[in-house]
Amino acid sequence: MDILALIFKKIGAYDRIIIHRHVRPDLDAFGSQVGLAEWIRFKFPDKEVHCVGENSDSLSYLATMDVIEDQDYTDALVIICDTANSPRIDDQRYSLGKETIKIDHHPIVDQYGDINWVDTGASSTSEMIYRLIAHHTDSDSEMTTDVARLLYAGIVGDTGRFLYSSTTAQTFEIASKLVKYPFDRAAIHQNMYELTPSLAKLKGYLLNQFTVNDAGVCSIKLTREILNKYQVTVEQTNALVHVYADIKGVKCWAMFVEEDHQIRVRIRSKEVTINGVAAQFNGGGHPFASGATVSNWDEADQLVHALTEVCQQ
Amino acid sequence: MDILALIFKKIGAYDRIIIHRHVRPDLDAFGSQVGLAEWIRFKFPDKEVHCVGENSDSLSYLATMDVIEDQDYTDALVIICDTANSPRIDDQRYSLGKETIKIDHHPIVDQYGDINWVDTGASSTSEMIYRLIAHHTDSDSEMTTDVARLLYAGIVGDTGRFLYSSTTAQTFEIASKLVKYPFDRAAIHQNMYELTPSLAKLKGYLLNQFTVNDAGVCSIKLTREILNKYQVTVEQTNALVHVYADIKGVKCWAMFVEEDHQIRVRIRSKEVTINGVAAQFNGGGHPFASGATVSNWDEADQLVHALTEVCQQ
Repeated sequence: MDILALIFKKIGAYDRIIIHRHVRPDLDAFGSQVGLAEWIRFKFPDKEVHCVGENSDSLSYLATMDVIEDQDYTDALVIICDTANSPRIDDQRYSLGKETIKIDHHPIVDQYGDINWVDTGASSTSEMIYRLIAHHTDSDSEMTTDVARLLYAGIVGDTGRFLYSSTTAQTFEIASKLVKYPFDRAAIHQNMYELTPSLAKLKGYLLNQFTVNDAGVCSIKLTREILNKYQVTVEQTNALVHVYADIKGVKCWAMFVEEDHQIRVRIRSKEVTINGVAAQFNGGGHPFASGATVSNWDEADQLVHALTEVCQQ
Repeated sequence: MDILALIFKKIGAYDRIIIHRHVRPDLDAFGSQVGLAEWIRFKFPDKEVHCVGENSDSLSYLATMDVIEDQDYTDALVIICDTANSPRIDDQRYSLGKETIKIDHHPIVDQYGDINWVDTGASSTSEMIYRLIAHHTDSDSEMTTDVARLLYAGIVGDTGRFLYSSTTAQTFEIASKLVKYPFDRAAIHQNMYELTPSLAKLKGYLLNQFTVNDAGVCSIKLTREILNKYQVTVEQTNALVHVYADIKGVKCWAMFVEEDHQIRVRIRSKEVTINGVAAQFNGGGHPFASGATVSNWDEADQLVHALTEVCQQ
């Protein structure tokens, strides 16, 4: 039996299904989790389906989570969407279920499910949920407008609205099926890109005050004074780490954000591998997206110097 | 005979085909014009095919134009892409041809062609060119990678990368066919969004220095001093007129740009009709995108006041 048929069979076999996803949810986590839940509710109105995890202020327009008791896990099927490893599953009670299924598109870290369906070629877990649905329905119209809305949001979120190279011919084909349903696409896009006036002004500061050296290293120092002026938290600045991606000649960049006793550094790159530099400064991460920590502004300058050497190699 | 078959028959009947598009070309103008030309060259290697109009610095990565003589128009078929009315056709020699075909997706202003194919429901003229090609080929693979690249660029340009409501299920379906060809999508996206460091810094200034009033009217005044500081021309500021679109609470905005003897105003709106206000200040345009002219900063404040009244209605 293929994996899609097996998952469908399991869904059919349980009366109660509880769906989880990763902590600090993004659009694809919510979209795949709640999209799958809504579809099961539509297809099997008699089943009890719950979505579990913390609510998210910025995603509340998409859906809200259910509150359930520990005993609800007894005899339940648990499906975990969009989560590569078990410590990142939001609400660790997932392990109380009778059987667990992992559905994910991230590189495999931990095969924590009794059944594991991982497709790293999929743009998003929402795309995989669409394929699961399409595999078991004869016509294009076998879902609700709300399911289409949730899966579209997930795909748009994880592909940067069809920007990243993970966007395939199949991704576009699925988008073409989803947008036939009359959900409000503009509302999803608006929620993705909307900035408060203070965040917009901080974004303006970031774009206005950066320096870029001859090697293509761009950097910005956000002092506590600046954060106070714009009334934003260290966490909120995370939403703006991509602001330098489209500037001509910039190969990589470091955003220094002053905390109480240290300076947090977010390092991003378009061309050069920067996790080696991050490792030199109490950090690490992916080749093009890493984090580090320095203790003062002199050390910040040393980090910029190290990035410059990488760019000049 | 349907219009697509008729156009295809005309293309087959002429030995020389000259393709035009509108002045101040954008991605869809270039994409549809050169995409069609490349496809005709691929399909009919013996025909002589020319693309006419001014070259564009910012689009030179896509294609460059051909230089032809007046007598080349004798006995030629002329196809004009993406142009609603004849005064906007780049290179008015289009009228020297033996027969003309208009292919366009804008609302009809002027049916200047002997044959006119206008589909205002299409996201872009590039999308229409894809349909013309698909109508006459049995398989998905009947084009070259370069044709796919040009049509994708046109679609992405006119839909704001699948953002605007003109993006339909068919648009996504066509995108799914085009991206099967191995052209460099990232290069197209990069060229769309890349900013020079000085334009990036001006964008930062715009996002940092705007004011927004209680009615949701946002405004910014770009003096000649500011333009000089950032070394950008009045024309270049046009690329940044959308910077306020994603700010929460902003209903409409006015960007004032000081010229030698007057102040140019670009007005944009998300919710309210603003061309009435533009008309009061020596201007006009579309309901959500207009232009005006004021003679001093006092008059600029009056225009903001007029926009405020519109927002409060």
